[in-house]
Amino acid sequence: AMDGSPAPASPAGLSAFVAVSQLLGLTLLVTTGAWLGRYRGGLAWHSPLQFNAHPLCMVLGMVFLQGDALLVYRVFRHEAKRSTKALHALLHGLALVIALVGVIAVFESHQTKGIPNMYSLHSWCGMAAFVLYLLQWLLGCGFFLFPGASFSLRSRYKPQHIFFGLALFVLSIASCLLGITEMLLFTISDTYSHFVPEGVLANTLGVMLVAFGLVVGYVLTREEWKRPPLAEELALSMDFKTLTEGESPGG
Amino acid sequence: AMDGSPAPASPAGLSAFVAVSQLLGLTLLVTTGAWLGRYRGGLAWHSPLQFNAHPLCMVLGMVFLQGDALLVYRVFRHEAKRSTKALHALLHGLALVIALVGVIAVFESHQTKGIPNMYSLHSWCGMAAFVLYLLQWLLGCGFFLFPGASFSLRSRYKPQHIFFGLALFVLSIASCLLGITEMLLFTISDTYSHFVPEGVLANTLGVMLVAFGLVVGYVLTREEWKRPPLAEELALSMDFKTLTEGESPGG
Repeated sequence: AMDGSPAPASPAGLSAFVAVSQLLGLTLLVTTGAWLGRYRGGLAWHSPLQFNAHPLCMVLGMVFLQGDALLVYRVFRHEAKRSTKALHALLHGLALVIALVGVIAVFESHQTKGIPNMYSLHSWCGMAAFVLYLLQWLLGCGFFLFPGASFSLRSRYKPQHIFFGLALFVLSIASCLLGITEMLLFTISDTYSHFVPEGVLANTLGVMLVAFGLVVGYVLTREEWKRPPLAEELALSMDFKTLTEGESPGG
Repeated sequence: AMDGSPAPASPAGLSAFVAVSQLLGLTLLVTTGAWLGRYRGGLAWHSPLQFNAHPLCMVLGMVFLQGDALLVYRVFRHEAKRSTKALHALLHGLALVIALVGVIAVFESHQTKGIPNMYSLHSWCGMAAFVLYLLQWLLGCGFFLFPGASFSLRSRYKPQHIFFGLALFVLSIASCLLGITEMLLFTISDTYSHFVPEGVLANTLGVMLVAFGLVVGYVLTREEWKRPPLAEELALSMDFKTLTEGESPGG
């Protein structure tokens, strides 16, 4: 804990699942890099390779960092709520900035090559995920980070924030799978059906994206692993309820 | 209720969301049918059109019926648990049979046309979803429908069954989105980027699949809409706990 007292232990299963999620997350990045580096000519910004920044930024921002931002309340379960909340917002903010770079990469690359934008199901799902993710972040900051919202307003918005947070994470992963499929059919449509190494590697990346989503989703939804409220939070919310709603703290 | 006493009302929001989900579900089927009928030559089994049975069966079985089977405990919230459970298993069983027809359609069609099987990310995700869905159904029947499993074994498996049930529903929808993208790039890759009606229609089908998943997922995860245990179930589980674990019903 931040005050130097011995930290209470996390549930053993939780630590194992979080470790697996981080290994999977790093493997996602390595696999994406290997695909782009080994088969797609590598990465460079102002060049015909600019497009390649798109998949890498999206996997890093919209999947790995978004997933880790969701895990923050499970991992730092005994830290002060305020610090954990700030880290949650910060990681999502970082994810959004990196995703924005990825969006710019694909639009500029299309511009250079004369390819139309926003015609495919991948672009529709991916753009919806990105815009709604930005909106969710702004709403989250407005309701939970700035002091304006009342206790009861926060309590009513919180379940919506949690549901749409997980839904956007899932939609982001689905958009990545669509992007992988598009990219393979644009580049190796002649040989994809012969199980060439590039196709198998990219399919494996897709399976690992699904696995990352499953592990993160499992950690988030498991009832016993939810962050327990600290003693002072319970007292505070009691006091706050008493002040705002006239309930007795003992009720 | 089945015994003829006046049925307790469902939460108003729940009924509205379930109605929207059913409208969306039917629109999914109509849109899939319109795509296949208007642009892909329609449906026929022993013919070059056999493939077209695949998308229709998958949307009907793996999405619409699977989703409705998940909703059963929310919709029939005041019926006897036993009947609701039987309907849940029956709808999933029906979904599996229809999905099997869809799987056979694509394998037979590939056989006829000399197209290799199981090379694409769509086939990997879709086959994983189908096989794990069958496994989940068998496990569900084994644990909850047949009388062998103990109360404590059922209680431990139930959260896993619920998590993987929702995860498989999401993976099924993601697989449909991948199938739509593949089919468009196989058939209209020259014109897809010009926003031709077939592309826009199929993209819209994808967006509606996502919307169906969102509405069903929202209904399933909303805490206040969970099925309340009936008075006799509470009493029964108390008695059962007392018998098996030696707890006092008052504890």
